Amino acid sequence: MTRPEAPPAHAAGSPPPDLATGAADVGAATFRRAWADLAPVGRSPDGAGYHRFAWTREDHALREWFAGEAAARGLDLVTDRAGNQWAWWGDPDAGPGVVTGSHLDSVPGGGAFDGPLGVVSAFAALDVLRARDVRPARPLGIACFGDEEGARFGVACAGSRLLTGVLDPDRARGLRDADGTTMADALATAGRNPSDLGPDHEALARVGAFVELHVEQGRGLVHSGDPVGVGRMIWPHGRWRVDLRGAPNHAGTTPLADRDDPMLDLAAFVQHVRAAALDAGALATVGKVRVEPNGVNAIPSQVTAWLDVRAEDERRVRAVLTALAAYAPHEESWTPVTVLDADLADEVATALGTAGLGSPRLGTGAGHDAGILAAAGVPTAMLFVRNPTGVSHAPAESADEADCLTGVGALAAALERLLTR
Amino acid sequence: MTRPEAPPAHAAGSPPPDLATGAADVGAATFRRAWADLAPVGRSPDGAGYHRFAWTREDHALREWFAGEAAARGLDLVTDRAGNQWAWWGDPDAGPGVVTGSHLDSVPGGGAFDGPLGVVSAFAALDVLRARDVRPARPLGIACFGDEEGARFGVACAGSRLLTGVLDPDRARGLRDADGTTMADALATAGRNPSDLGPDHEALARVGAFVELHVEQGRGLVHSGDPVGVGRMIWPHGRWRVDLRGAPNHAGTTPLADRDDPMLDLAAFVQHVRAAALDAGALATVGKVRVEPNGVNAIPSQVTAWLDVRAEDERRVRAVLTALAAYAPHEESWTPVTVLDADLADEVATALGTAGLGSPRLGTGAGHDAGILAAAGVPTAMLFVRNPTGVSHAPAESADEADCLTGVGALAAALERLLTR
Repeated sequence: MTRPEAPPAHAAGSPPPDLATGAADVGAATFRRAWADLAPVGRSPDGAGYHRFAWTREDHALREWFAGEAAARGLDLVTDRAGNQWAWWGDPDAGPGVVTGSHLDSVPGGGAFDGPLGVVSAFAALDVLRARDVRPARPLGIACFGDEEGARFGVACAGSRLLTGVLDPDRARGLRDADGTTMADALATAGRNPSDLGPDHEALARVGAFVELHVEQGRGLVHSGDPVGVGRMIWPHGRWRVDLRGAPNHAGTTPLADRDDPMLDLAAFVQHVRAAALDAGALATVGKVRVEPNGVNAIPSQVTAWLDVRAEDERRVRAVLTALAAYAPHEESWTPVTVLDADLADEVATALGTAGLGSPRLGTGAGHDAGILAAAGVPTAMLFVRNPTGVSHAPAESADEADCLTGVGALAAALERLLTR
Repeated sequence: MTRPEAPPAHAAGSPPPDLATGAADVGAATFRRAWADLAPVGRSPDGAGYHRFAWTREDHALREWFAGEAAARGLDLVTDRAGNQWAWWGDPDAGPGVVTGSHLDSVPGGGAFDGPLGVVSAFAALDVLRARDVRPARPLGIACFGDEEGARFGVACAGSRLLTGVLDPDRARGLRDADGTTMADALATAGRNPSDLGPDHEALARVGAFVELHVEQGRGLVHSGDPVGVGRMIWPHGRWRVDLRGAPNHAGTTPLADRDDPMLDLAAFVQHVRAAALDAGALATVGKVRVEPNGVNAIPSQVTAWLDVRAEDERRVRAVLTALAAYAPHEESWTPVTVLDADLADEVATALGTAGLGSPRLGTGAGHDAGILAAAGVPTAMLFVRNPTGVSHAPAESADEADCLTGVGALAAALERLLTR
């Protein structure tokens, strides 16, 4: 493992952030080039969004891109036992360091921003710091977490959950995608040794603080009129599976009175979910369904529905589940409320103020690797960039370039404060 | 093309059908052996039924089995331009002949009887006729129609529709399966030349009369107390596609009031379908659904639902469609009522009477190759074998062996009458 020359131990008095300087131009240039590099990877030709799933050809291309960005800057590239990538400026063992980044994978038909905005902004912010000749007192890491969306194997934040030991590697290796391929086989196909998979305490110990920049998934910043905001907490959320069983039969010959058709149960379930969410003041969604055998002329034998429930507090989530108890929902994942580090958020907000930016505090219903790291005891903060549509996980997800560049400046300001304090 | 020796032109006075003779034992032995041969092909190890789809490995094994049965009897095997197999006893061009048979493919998770019962019974009935030394006045063909269920490419009775020219070969070649593979590619993979696909007037002209034996898909014979019955008509039926579009978004961040969630439209649609079917006295089913992107944490962009509607008369079917007009159903297929040949049915009934069997007349809501041939002007009859569960297109589809063997005897009696009249 080769490492770049370590930065000078400390240099106080680096110039104050100024988004109108040449350093900001460097950040903008990096941002635009990197964004253009990533734009075609995994994009549907029909405009139906991005398909970037773990350990696929597209994932490989994204990992190669990350490695190339690291190499071009002389950063030290490490891939941890969980498959996450880290690019270090300065000796990562001279820390603990400050880490920023996000992920590059997507949901099926996802938008361009969820994940990549944080990784691209990280490289752009690093270039801003270097252009300003900032001399960090500790190493800076740029992280790209693997399999954040869990789109292929069904477990969200799989990379950070494996890293922190929350996801058992045996369970992970046995997870199957829609084609029946296990994660172990997918890893082997991607050239990795599946038996290496597991928690990586060395990689985790290097993270003294983590700042994840992310496109806002909602319109809180549209309403407040701010280009960026600071994360306060991540809502508690979970996933449940409901199995609706029926009696399979021929659609052309079975009298209506003799049918036990689980598609009718699905219809009632979907409506009960919405009613329960409205009653509880929660968000609840049936976004995934599997019908067996799924034949036009076959009354289904079974319909399986997946339920996603989130709310500002756990009581509301549990109220939805209680209302649906008759469907015997099976819990597939559960993440309690994650309160992000208040001190770190204050530091970030102070840095934003220095840069002339407001710092409204936002909660979010979306899960993030930041939440997994926070739960593992890492002081963690989030920066959000305004999303005019509020849409996420879909092609309409967006952010104005001006807001993205403000986000780069905000991230650079926050990192400078954390690296030099 | 080699052909077996043609049978003697005619021999009056063959012995009357007698299910207790040695000939019946021959039929039973053939039936049991053939049934055992087919039992493992395409069967789910978990007991979730059969998966035998067109131009797959399983389909190949079934075609090889059919060819082997033909060869073992010295029959002349012909595969027509539509991919259907024909095994001829006697010179097929000395006809027109009498043809019996069915299909060997299945729906996803299908039962063992729908299709194979007709093909196995055909070979068993032929062996009965030979054991009785019946001397046919015209050739006898055993047909195995390809892709009857349409499970892979979405068009039911694809083999007989291609044969008769009802399905355009260009459209057929372009049909795609769930993996995006076209029928043209599937044919090429199976070793066939896709450009050969098309109507086959020569093969069709050889069919002077067609008798299809099939397991009953319902409990009409259970109620009448008969082991076998004779087909009267096939209900009019069709398939429609309904596209329910929404606004894709993140399930964790989009307020309920801001959602346009097509899963809720699906729920309402499924309930409207059932209500419309009850009102009209028709059968209507939503058995197939596609959700996009089908992610647990994604409000779907679109839900596509397929609707199957059948009734004793077209007026009732149209009443269902009228009630659902707001969903703008797109017609994917339509088959008008098929009245089977009354004279041929009378001949079959007379033969059953000679064999000491009743011959209740039955309508059926299921489509069959017999219906496609009847619509093409071929005199066509159907024989049904009692199904204790009434279930079809599912593993619970069944028939008692004693009834199956009665079916073989009934088919042999009918064929003898048609071959020697």
